[in-house]
Amino acid sequence: MPTRLSNYFLRTLREDPSDAEVTSHRLLVRAGYIRRQAPGIFAWLPLGLRVKGKIEAIIREEMAAAGAHEVHFPALLPREPYEVTGRWEEYGDALFRVKDRKGSDMLLAPTHEEAFTLLVKDLYNSYKDLPLSIYQIQDKYRDEARSRGGLLRGREFTMKDAYSFDHTDAGLDASYQAQRDAYERIFTRLGLEYVIVKADAGAMGGSKSEEFLHPTPVGEDTFVRSAGGYAANVEAFTTVAPPTRSSEKLTPAEVLDTPDSATIEALVERANSAHPRPDGRSWTAADTLKNVVLALTHPDGSRELVVVGLPGDREVDMKRVEVAFGPAEVEPANEADFARLDKLDGHPGLVKGYIGPWSADGAVLGEESTTGIRFLVDPRVVDGTGWITGANVHGKHVFGLVAGRDFQPDGTVEAAEVRAGDPAPDGSGPVELARGMEIGHVFQLGRKYAEALGLKVLDENGKLVTVTMGSYGIGVTRALAVIAELNNDAKGLIWPEAVSPFDVQVIATGRDEVVFDVSEIVVAAIEATGREVLYDDRRKVSPGVKFGDAELIGIPNLVIVGRGAADGIVEFWDRKTGEREQVAVADVAARLG
Amino acid sequence: MPTRLSNYFLRTLREDPSDAEVTSHRLLVRAGYIRRQAPGIFAWLPLGLRVKGKIEAIIREEMAAAGAHEVHFPALLPREPYEVTGRWEEYGDALFRVKDRKGSDMLLAPTHEEAFTLLVKDLYNSYKDLPLSIYQIQDKYRDEARSRGGLLRGREFTMKDAYSFDHTDAGLDASYQAQRDAYERIFTRLGLEYVIVKADAGAMGGSKSEEFLHPTPVGEDTFVRSAGGYAANVEAFTTVAPPTRSSEKLTPAEVLDTPDSATIEALVERANSAHPRPDGRSWTAADTLKNVVLALTHPDGSRELVVVGLPGDREVDMKRVEVAFGPAEVEPANEADFARLDKLDGHPGLVKGYIGPWSADGAVLGEESTTGIRFLVDPRVVDGTGWITGANVHGKHVFGLVAGRDFQPDGTVEAAEVRAGDPAPDGSGPVELARGMEIGHVFQLGRKYAEALGLKVLDENGKLVTVTMGSYGIGVTRALAVIAELNNDAKGLIWPEAVSPFDVQVIATGRDEVVFDVSEIVVAAIEATGREVLYDDRRKVSPGVKFGDAELIGIPNLVIVGRGAADGIVEFWDRKTGEREQVAVADVAARLG
Repeated sequence: MPTRLSNYFLRTLREDPSDAEVTSHRLLVRAGYIRRQAPGIFAWLPLGLRVKGKIEAIIREEMAAAGAHEVHFPALLPREPYEVTGRWEEYGDALFRVKDRKGSDMLLAPTHEEAFTLLVKDLYNSYKDLPLSIYQIQDKYRDEARSRGGLLRGREFTMKDAYSFDHTDAGLDASYQAQRDAYERIFTRLGLEYVIVKADAGAMGGSKSEEFLHPTPVGEDTFVRSAGGYAANVEAFTTVAPPTRSSEKLTPAEVLDTPDSATIEALVERANSAHPRPDGRSWTAADTLKNVVLALTHPDGSRELVVVGLPGDREVDMKRVEVAFGPAEVEPANEADFARLDKLDGHPGLVKGYIGPWSADGAVLGEESTTGIRFLVDPRVVDGTGWITGANVHGKHVFGLVAGRDFQPDGTVEAAEVRAGDPAPDGSGPVELARGMEIGHVFQLGRKYAEALGLKVLDENGKLVTVTMGSYGIGVTRALAVIAELNNDAKGLIWPEAVSPFDVQVIATGRDEVVFDVSEIVVAAIEATGREVLYDDRRKVSPGVKFGDAELIGIPNLVIVGRGAADGIVEFWDRKTGEREQVAVADVAARLG
Repeated sequence: MPTRLSNYFLRTLREDPSDAEVTSHRLLVRAGYIRRQAPGIFAWLPLGLRVKGKIEAIIREEMAAAGAHEVHFPALLPREPYEVTGRWEEYGDALFRVKDRKGSDMLLAPTHEEAFTLLVKDLYNSYKDLPLSIYQIQDKYRDEARSRGGLLRGREFTMKDAYSFDHTDAGLDASYQAQRDAYERIFTRLGLEYVIVKADAGAMGGSKSEEFLHPTPVGEDTFVRSAGGYAANVEAFTTVAPPTRSSEKLTPAEVLDTPDSATIEALVERANSAHPRPDGRSWTAADTLKNVVLALTHPDGSRELVVVGLPGDREVDMKRVEVAFGPAEVEPANEADFARLDKLDGHPGLVKGYIGPWSADGAVLGEESTTGIRFLVDPRVVDGTGWITGANVHGKHVFGLVAGRDFQPDGTVEAAEVRAGDPAPDGSGPVELARGMEIGHVFQLGRKYAEALGLKVLDENGKLVTVTMGSYGIGVTRALAVIAELNNDAKGLIWPEAVSPFDVQVIATGRDEVVFDVSEIVVAAIEATGREVLYDDRRKVSPGVKFGDAELIGIPNLVIVGRGAADGIVEFWDRKTGEREQVAVADVAARLG
């Protein structure tokens, strides 16, 4: 039985929804696939639910092929296990927290590592039970600060999350690879181009992590790749440090007047005019050491100020910094923070605009200082490099301050922006930058969760060993949105066949009864091939409106039954190319192949 | 490909879980179908997920046959629409409330009337768009005060909820009937005996409502039915009032000493010994009017005291009272309440143990009193009936106090318990009582939600009319539990074929390789018939353990491949009857039919 548009729960819109920021959101709402219920929270109308079901079916097939078993966990879970692993705090405001009538703390799970770990602990106790991979397709919750882009970043969203359990590192490698391979098959079947990039494990903990990014200008992730095959998101990119140099022949540092030079730009100009470089070349921003004060808020609520030193030609990349300092939250220091730094107890203060690790009165930052403020530098600030940097006196900078000789950082940090042309850490050449949307993520969690929650099994020698885990996620609703982003034109959606809500749409146009009679024959012939048909059987709707709806809805194969019906002729219409072709009714099934 | 037990995510338990109160919970946990995550919140293991999927597939087929379209709403919804319909308050503590990071109030939806109403308002605007029936199968949340019975009453549970939209009452009747018919088909296919009973619409509002109750001693609902076909749950049962009588020939009321008679039992004894009935028969509890003080808590938080008068031989049924006074919550008056009644401003007080509507100083309760306390009576307390009741003086009752002559109630209330033998309100004879578990519920909501949320359409005359709605629910996870309650024996579950996780389980027993070779042939032959097979291919597990697991898991059709394998003989084992039968390998497919 075909689905008949005359009584289908569908209403297309002529106008774009006012709150839609991206194409997929705009078209999915206009074509009657989804409706917004609250910021980042959507209802699925029949067409949308069908597409979502097709994507889920593909995922289920590939999960089964990878040997993973399907389970289903509740969304509402108790606090305790998340407390034990620290995620109750670490998730911050992104976690929806709920109190039940008895006052017990619960949460709407953002992912289910804890619950899966405890389930396996409950059921299994021997290495013979492993390896195990289990997964679910389930609705998850994250209270995003800014949910935007429709389904691209929802607060309630459907995710496939899989977890693997092994008792050896080699086992984890194999389980990880099996999921990674399944992801490649899934995204290929969904027609989604992807780049696998090294990623940071972030709040998930663990050791190895890769993201499947779909390259797209609307992506919120920036990633880098080299011609030689290196790929990483910028958070996971590691800077290649230059070799250290000897400071033996370097001249001593010198404090010079640099009035009105609180910015790097002003400083470089002032330095070139008042203190020209001895070798005749010009000073550039790369010769300066910019010291940025950041405020970290740790999970326990404490606030720490950290100074980050980096070449003055690079900006701090807050996303990289957040990963570097995670789980702490990071923000630029505020006026109150600077006021605090101005009068460091028993030390020369840090003077805003003229901050540096050194002062005429001694070390202000770094290992030799006792201010207690951490001073971390970009990996490029190696021993033997000389810098122009603040002298902690208003209107003065110190020139030729040498790392390792004149100041000793407390360590390095990946805080600087990555730029096209930066060398890939694996030596595979310079990188280029691109934007991508995360559509999948695979993690080697290692033993973090198993350790925290006590998941151990007996090994071959009867010894209790802690299980090592992997975690693997695909955003189902996000993948749907990305597919919609990719497959559309000015007139509407154009679904790939693998996920189209129906295989074929038959459109009856005209008023003659023969059109509807022939349409029924055509529909039956197509259904006999095993295909699903959406049949536009509406009687009082003009052909123009029907064609417009069909183009908006985006089923790739269209069949028009109209003027030629009486002569046994219908028209095949390719939604993607727009090409139309006359076909005899008797040949319809054969033509579909 | 069969599912192989050697690597299936399953572990059966030898012991009953300590927290299981009912058979279904006990067996579903032991056989590896579900695991408890928190009170009333469960995870679904692979076997359980399969059974749930089968039930959902049957529901989907019958919903499609009833012309309903599937959609899917979020669980997390904004407060506002529920505020407008009053349910944000009415649901009380049973509603899980959530605040998002911006402080907005949200909720985990217990049902979705508001959201569906708003969706249809968003999409439709003409009577031509109607009738419409849409449904979802979705996880719902209710913070039950006492979640018990495993899946029978969960706090997170899966429900099929459908909603119908019509612009005429006749249309609503037809939509209601279509869902009601679908429910009959669904429960028949699930093998669930049901009784359709008149029900009270409760917090849902609306006019007509029926419940599908599965008769079972573990049911939490009591219902009544007559041989003549009447059926109702006790909350919806209406009392048949006797005809009013003339009070002309009745003697005046008389206050008599009844010391130590604060209970009905003591009063009857005292009356028979000290004040014998003039006609020589004995006084019974049915001659007394018992006045019970109830405290109502209204949704706005205010507390009201109400006195309910009923024949002394009947108890107050708190469930009936809650429906009668809903949405207020009802509890017996406490000591503080009685203290308040003791000194009614400007009136004789109500004396605990001796409360009545009348006192020697004038009316205390009812229309002629000005205490402001409502006095509602059982429908049997009709004009002209005389009663022994409290005189509002310690140790005294008034005899022969006649309704309509000596006191005027403020109205009637269905507060008294229903008893076997009570007449059915439709004249179909005396009723009997039984216990049942609600497995479905159909409501004619009428225009309550559409009115509150402004859902109107243009009718045939171009006039805006408010839409009339129905709401139809099936507890999917509860239905699964009820099926498990019904279908088991001392050894484990015995699934009906329609919902069994697999169609056939093949059990290889023995160590000879031929057993496993023949098993593969048998499995392939069964799969070729389109059936799903669970294959117990475990090598190091004894036949006894395998048989025990099979009996616990409860797939109805079992095939044992063992000693006869070398001779091409296997054994069919009927899980329900226990009968075994030898079958040639070549005949396996034919034997299954």
